[in-house]
This record gives sequence, C-alpha cells and structure tokens, in this order.
Amino acid sequence: MKVGENKILNGKQVAKSLEAEVRAKAEKLQEQDIVPGLSVILVGDDPASEVYVSYKEKACQRVGINSEVINLPADTSQEELLAKVEKLNQANEVDGILVQLPLPEQIDEEEVIETIDPAKDVDGFHPVNVGKLVASSTELIPCTPKGIMELLNRYNIDLVGQEAVVVGRSNIVGKPIANLLLQANATVTICHSRTQNLTKHTKEADILVAAVGQQEFITADMVKEGATVIDVGIHRTGDGLVGDVAFEEVQEKVAAITPVPGGVGPLTIASLMENTLVACQQRRG
Amino acid sequence: MKVGENKILNGKQVAKSLEAEVRAKAEKLQEQDIVPGLSVILVGDDPASEVYVSYKEKACQRVGINSEVINLPADTSQEELLAKVEKLNQANEVDGILVQLPLPEQIDEEEVIETIDPAKDVDGFHPVNVGKLVASSTELIPCTPKGIMELLNRYNIDLVGQEAVVVGRSNIVGKPIANLLLQANATVTICHSRTQNLTKHTKEADILVAAVGQQEFITADMVKEGATVIDVGIHRTGDGLVGDVAFEEVQEKVAAITPVPGGVGPLTIASLMENTLVACQQRRG
Repeated sequence: MKVGENKILNGKQVAKSLEAEVRAKAEKLQEQDIVPGLSVILVGDDPASEVYVSYKEKACQRVGINSEVINLPADTSQEELLAKVEKLNQANEVDGILVQLPLPEQIDEEEVIETIDPAKDVDGFHPVNVGKLVASSTELIPCTPKGIMELLNRYNIDLVGQEAVVVGRSNIVGKPIANLLLQANATVTICHSRTQNLTKHTKEADILVAAVGQQEFITADMVKEGATVIDVGIHRTGDGLVGDVAFEEVQEKVAAITPVPGGVGPLTIASLMENTLVACQQRRG
Repeated sequence: MKVGENKILNGKQVAKSLEAEVRAKAEKLQEQDIVPGLSVILVGDDPASEVYVSYKEKACQRVGINSEVINLPADTSQEELLAKVEKLNQANEVDGILVQLPLPEQIDEEEVIETIDPAKDVDGFHPVNVGKLVASSTELIPCTPKGIMELLNRYNIDLVGQEAVVVGRSNIVGKPIANLLLQANATVTICHSRTQNLTKHTKEADILVAAVGQQEFITADMVKEGATVIDVGIHRTGDGLVGDVAFEEVQEKVAAITPVPGGVGPLTIASLMENTLVACQQRRG
C-alpha cells in the first residue's frame, strides 16, 4: 500500500498496513504448521519498559505471532540472564529474542546482545547484524530506523541526493538511520551533542531526523521551509506525550512531519513484527 | 611520539614510528616464543594487487612478523578459496588472514570475508568487526581509516565539534572513517556520487577526506581555507602517482594535507602490522 500525500505522516496508519502484511504472511506459514514465536526478556520493573513490552505483546496477538514475556527480577545476575538467552537460542519454536533495554546496572548489555543468536536478533543490535546493515546486506534492521524508512517510502518522499540530517548518534536509532539514508542515496550529516552550530545543519535538511532525547528540542527556527521532519522522541508530560520536536510551531513550516504519538512509535512495533516474521521465514520457512 | 606541526602531513614518518612500536611489541612476544603471523591470499595476477602484497610482506619483515603469501590461480573456485581460508582459521601460528581484494568475478567476496575467523580478520571487514566498530568496541579496524586517525592524532589535529566531510562511501574507507570521525566527536557528513552541490559541502569541511577514486577530483575551489585534507586516492599516471586531490593547487590554500605518495599509503600498511600484532596478542599473548 502507498498512502496518500498528507502533511501529517500517519505512522499509525502505515503500521496498520505493515501489520496486515505480516498477518497475511503468518497465515501462510500456518498452512505449514509454523507459527512465528517472539520471546521478550524483561529484567526488573521499569514502568516504561513494561508499557513497551505490553505494546509488543498486543501486536503479536494482532498479527498471529506467538509471544512470551519472561520477567526476571531486577537483581538477576549476568550468568542467569545469559543462560536464559542461551536457552532461547536453542528453542526451535522461538524465532525472535528481544531483551528489553535498558538493563540493570550489574548487567553487561554488550555481552547479552552478543550472546543472542544473530538469526534470532529481531532488534538488529548484534554486531553481525550491525555490520551487515553497514554493508547493506541484512534483513534484521533495528526496528525504529526500519519503520522510518518504510514511512518515507510509503509516502513517496524522495531521498536521492537530498540533504538528510540526523540529530543524535545512538546505536539504536541515529547510526542505523544514517546508514539507511545513505543507502537510499541521501547526503547524510550526523549531528550530536558536540556539534557546533547545530541550527546551521538542521536548517539545511530536506529530511530531518530528530533522535535527541530532549523534549521539544527542535524548534521552528531550526528547520527549513518545506522539509520532512521525523520525530523519534517520546516524552511523558503533564499534557500527554510529546516528542523531540516542538510539533505545533514546526508543522506550520514544513512539508511533512510525524506526530507524537502516532508517528514513529507504531512503526517501531510493526517493524518488530516484520523482523520476527522474517527471522521465522529464514529459520523455518 | 607526537610529530611536529607541518603543513605536509608526513604519513611515511608516522608510519615509521608506528612500525617501530609494533616491532618493539613483537620483540616482547618473542620472549614468550611467540612470533605473530600474517597470511595473505592473492588470487590471480592483478599487477596492482601484487605490488600491494609485496609492500605488506616487506613491512612484515621490518617489524618481525612472519608472513606467508598464498598465490592461487585466477580461476580458483569459491570452494577452493573457502577451504584455504578455513585451513588458515585452524592454523594456530596464523594470527592474521588477509584476502587481497579485488577478487575474480566467480568469487563471492562477501562469503569469503564472512568465512574468515573474526579474531584473525586484520582487514576489519568481517561483519562482526564492522558492527563492533560502529558500536566503538573493536581493535581490528580497517587499515586505511585506522591509519588516518593515527595521523590526525599524532599531528594533534582537533576533531571535537569540527566539520568533517567524507567524500566516498565505500565499506573499506568511506563508511569506517565516517564512523571513527563521529566517535572522535566531529560532526560528520558523507557525500557520494549522488550528492547534489558537493562543493557546498566540501567548502565547509574543517577535515576533508577524499576517497573518491577519481584522479585530482578535489580542486582548490572546493576546499575551505585552513582545512585539513586527507587524500586516500592513488592513481598511476605518466607523471607518477597522484591522489584524489589536485595537490599543488590545494596545498596553497589549506593548513594541512597528505601527499601522494607518502601520505595515507604507508599508514595503511603500518596499521595492518598493528592489527596483526593486536590479533596475536589477543589470541596468544
């Protein structure tokens, strides 16, 4: 499905359409008695993480993926967590393994991620998958960047030769989205906390990806008229959820913008469903 | 060693100093009866590849690394090449495996690279090492970008918050140097063949890395006064070797520039020696 042109990029609608595609493919697999399976490990009781995990579970139910949430206490040791991951690596009916981040302090996150079987790494965080992403050859792409690319694609937003500016350089969003935009032939600039004259860069962006982690950080004076703005941020405030972009003032100026909520969030979940399905097809299909 | 300030960045001299450090460390390993070993596989008889391989062999001799060049005919099959790589993976005295690129058409380069044991991947091209580089956690970094970072470091060239522009997006140079410059807190822009208004970008670069693969492509009008220019290109002409930068006219305008030859080339070789030593230390040290 290609959705129509619209200033407010409807991530929720695109996610719905992605999920329908996953559901149709999952139904096909069921004809072979295969049901994709996703196991989510949640360590501790971070309330935000609990909410995210519940969204993922509900999405699995919608698309016909078996899901399991493994709750481990906050004081789980490194060895216990690794042993759990190893067990899931061995389980044939588990296609996707997701360890919800952040992890408690005593846990070495890097080692945990490297222990996940790359073929089951539906978050796309394992070094093998990161490396393949850089070389343009993997399907298990981190969910948020993957969802953003789907959105840009379905809204027919031209990327070739366009100036793309990514604000934020996390391993989860900033770096992988920069790579994907580069593969799509945009000219890509990565800005971050040490960037001098940030506004000079953001004002030149045809495509601006805000993954700063600061509430309403991108203001109207920082964006180019007619730009496409992707807001990756999510912050809970007294007035509800807001993003990294000052939506009201910025939307007046730009050609297209993702709202918060209903923009990048649902796309991230839908991409996780896609990754789980792809992992299942590659392992068992 | 920190070398003195000088407009012409003397890659040869820095490489010499790097090699001396590798030699000292190799001598230490010899006290434990360990001699680092590098095996280079050369498929076919590409003259440029033969020259590069001979440089690598000579460097091994200078620093005290055992080297072996395995010449395979141009019509070697994929299976034969993979079997050779597997054998080197098993050989304890081999710390580094380098398959000289480019490979003949019948060979699937990606599969060959993925077959090399990541712990012996002294080119830093295996997806695991690429992924770790992105996440800032590997020591086996591709040799050319690694050498460039050493040069910038030893000449005390400030990178924090500086505008770095990389022209070229290869997996061997463009993408990894962009990652390393980002880790060094530069603001990084990656330009390429589809970039519109390339000069606008290059003229804003405090640090300009030319990895275009086109002879004297970067001209004086394309650089900023006072910039640092790193020339990754190497082209054989009737007048000798030239780079991707029109050296004579550009050097008038900039604060610092690498020459060709004597710039990036020797640093690449020295970095290969370092990677082989590091691989040896990690495996056997």
